[in-house]
Amino acid sequence: MRIIVFGGDGFCGWPASLHLSDLGHEVMIADNLSRRAIDEELGAESLTPIASIADRLAAWREVSGREIAFRDVDLAADYDALLTALEEFRPDAVVHFAEQRAAPYSMKDAGHKRYTVDNNVRATHNLLAAIVESGLDVHVVHLGTMGVYGYGTAGMQIPEGYLDVQVTTPDGETIDQQILYPSNPGSVYHMTKVLDQHLFAFYAKNDRLRVTDLHQGIIWGTNTTQTSLDERLVNRFDYDGDYGTVLNRFLVEAAVGYPLTVHGTGGQTRAFIHIQDMVRCVQIAIENPPEAGDRVKIFNQMTETHRVRDLAAQIAEITGARVELTPNPRQESAENELHVVNRSFLDLGLEPTRLSEGLLREVEETAGRYRDRVDLERIPSRSLWTSRQAPGVPPSAPVPVA
Amino acid sequence: MRIIVFGGDGFCGWPASLHLSDLGHEVMIADNLSRRAIDEELGAESLTPIASIADRLAAWREVSGREIAFRDVDLAADYDALLTALEEFRPDAVVHFAEQRAAPYSMKDAGHKRYTVDNNVRATHNLLAAIVESGLDVHVVHLGTMGVYGYGTAGMQIPEGYLDVQVTTPDGETIDQQILYPSNPGSVYHMTKVLDQHLFAFYAKNDRLRVTDLHQGIIWGTNTTQTSLDERLVNRFDYDGDYGTVLNRFLVEAAVGYPLTVHGTGGQTRAFIHIQDMVRCVQIAIENPPEAGDRVKIFNQMTETHRVRDLAAQIAEITGARVELTPNPRQESAENELHVVNRSFLDLGLEPTRLSEGLLREVEETAGRYRDRVDLERIPSRSLWTSRQAPGVPPSAPVPVA
Repeated sequence: MRIIVFGGDGFCGWPASLHLSDLGHEVMIADNLSRRAIDEELGAESLTPIASIADRLAAWREVSGREIAFRDVDLAADYDALLTALEEFRPDAVVHFAEQRAAPYSMKDAGHKRYTVDNNVRATHNLLAAIVESGLDVHVVHLGTMGVYGYGTAGMQIPEGYLDVQVTTPDGETIDQQILYPSNPGSVYHMTKVLDQHLFAFYAKNDRLRVTDLHQGIIWGTNTTQTSLDERLVNRFDYDGDYGTVLNRFLVEAAVGYPLTVHGTGGQTRAFIHIQDMVRCVQIAIENPPEAGDRVKIFNQMTETHRVRDLAAQIAEITGARVELTPNPRQESAENELHVVNRSFLDLGLEPTRLSEGLLREVEETAGRYRDRVDLERIPSRSLWTSRQAPGVPPSAPVPVA
Repeated sequence: MRIIVFGGDGFCGWPASLHLSDLGHEVMIADNLSRRAIDEELGAESLTPIASIADRLAAWREVSGREIAFRDVDLAADYDALLTALEEFRPDAVVHFAEQRAAPYSMKDAGHKRYTVDNNVRATHNLLAAIVESGLDVHVVHLGTMGVYGYGTAGMQIPEGYLDVQVTTPDGETIDQQILYPSNPGSVYHMTKVLDQHLFAFYAKNDRLRVTDLHQGIIWGTNTTQTSLDERLVNRFDYDGDYGTVLNRFLVEAAVGYPLTVHGTGGQTRAFIHIQDMVRCVQIAIENPPEAGDRVKIFNQMTETHRVRDLAAQIAEITGARVELTPNPRQESAENELHVVNRSFLDLGLEPTRLSEGLLREVEETAGRYRDRVDLERIPSRSLWTSRQAPGVPPSAPVPVA
């Protein structure tokens, strides 16, 4: 197949591009390298030393004998270049990772809120409008998030995108309906993925576009089979207060002898998936497209759920680190249950990588190996969800224990 | 109260601004005059000869003795000017009409789809982000549309924004929930109003912004008490294929002796409200804001429903015009029922202007009075909802009968 990966230089896009290329697909990466620019803006750097996109592609050619094409395209800003890329490459599928993806970054201030909304909505809508204009039959696979559902659905299971409900009419008749799961995003970033859902629903209905939306949990793990082949292929590992996921923050804190900083009580339950499973899910999604005229196909792309404090405890057990509770900068429930349906990918052959099996490798091969590159200043999140929080709840920096 | 009307030079914004000024409020209009620019793009003109914004404001000063301030602000593109306007004027409420509002215009081609999404989403999000940044407590009243609900809800009533549903848990327990009504927009324009809903919901939750969303039906009627006071205050009357509502098209067709062009079978049921009732609804919404921390307050702003063919029949009866069926350029059901709850405004004192009472005035005072200004070429819609329609269903121009 011919596949364009938009955002193919990013944390998920890069290993997905290599995985698809390794399977023998003809892959083009289209990326404006904005994630690298944000590193510079934040004065943050991937813990792993990532190569330039040119060096990455050269290394892949050398290691695999396969060629990945590259175009520097800003999906949100350069519609004509996007349309040209589609018309010239004529993809069977596109994978759309090209969005600003950090919740804390999206909440920093008005400028970052506006960048996240403008960039993400325009990127998605430009892609859909360009596919319609091109007249090509392209399957769109989009990286969404479990965060569109919101958390804390007491006693309920989160289905794969669509919820069965009963509605009572004025005549007292009960009607069964299946609706897009009511959204409850927790940040401007998550809100943009809600907006994406409505863009997809419209274009699937009006223009019969084939769209798959992957509602992904929090990724853990850094490298995949392909990114492990050569150090120039290494994937990024973010641990800064904006882009670092909770697990990465813990790993880095443990590696440098800091306590593990748990926000609030750590009672928040989150859904997780290993990066190796993510690339496999993207493959499965591409191989199982919806039909033209179908509604958007939604997969829950996660394999296990954990409470944040239980994650911290697991890492503490491996590393001997201490756990410390700090005020939570986010507006969210202190404790929540989370029950997620994820049958689709399992039924299609996904074999999950379990956290209990993979965590030690992360501690040793990533956080341990690159610990000298850690910049302690970058760890705390400095984004507050509302100005109301500012006086009472300052984001606290971790305190060294050793 | 101090009120900024964004989009205050437009079809709804102008009469709403005059009405609020007439009530004694301190009003500022902020508008980039984009609607006038689109007239030039389309080579179309309001049937009524509308004055420049400067002449409008001078006439209002002369007639009423009241001053309306004006700023040329592009809500979508000039965030700094928006923030300055808020900080200097310090409004108690803003009314947000500043969006591209024509469904056919939004479906013309990729460029018009993209303009509509980029402009409308950015306008709404900039406004919300700027209010948060300003730290002011501003009630946002937004002009939404009944079109977010979609049509054709068999046997169901459309509630005011929120739907009661029952959800069954895996344990067999039934949970009652109230959710934002599942959206089903029929055009890119309507879709942007769906996106707006999710922006409002997030900012109401996260930042405790007070937001009222008016889900408006199709406006009929041209002038209000204030716009009728002086010809320089006259409101716009659009009858072109992009911006003309179905009723305006019929009125103009009748005035120039053309048959009334009904799309499809004319079995589409739509919700309507007179322009005089619209300005009153805006007033009522401003006078009854939600509390900080409340969810978005949603009113259905409509007073009656009619099938399109029944509207045509009413106008035919008054004018003697003939009715002609033409292919429908839209993707929609040929026939639908529509039952809408609209208690909130009635309970708060709205006294509806009935179509059966007001139609004759439109025929005589607007369509009849300005019939010499009609440009026949502008009447047919040239927008197709999908390229698939192009070969089979060309938009047909009306054929003269006299």
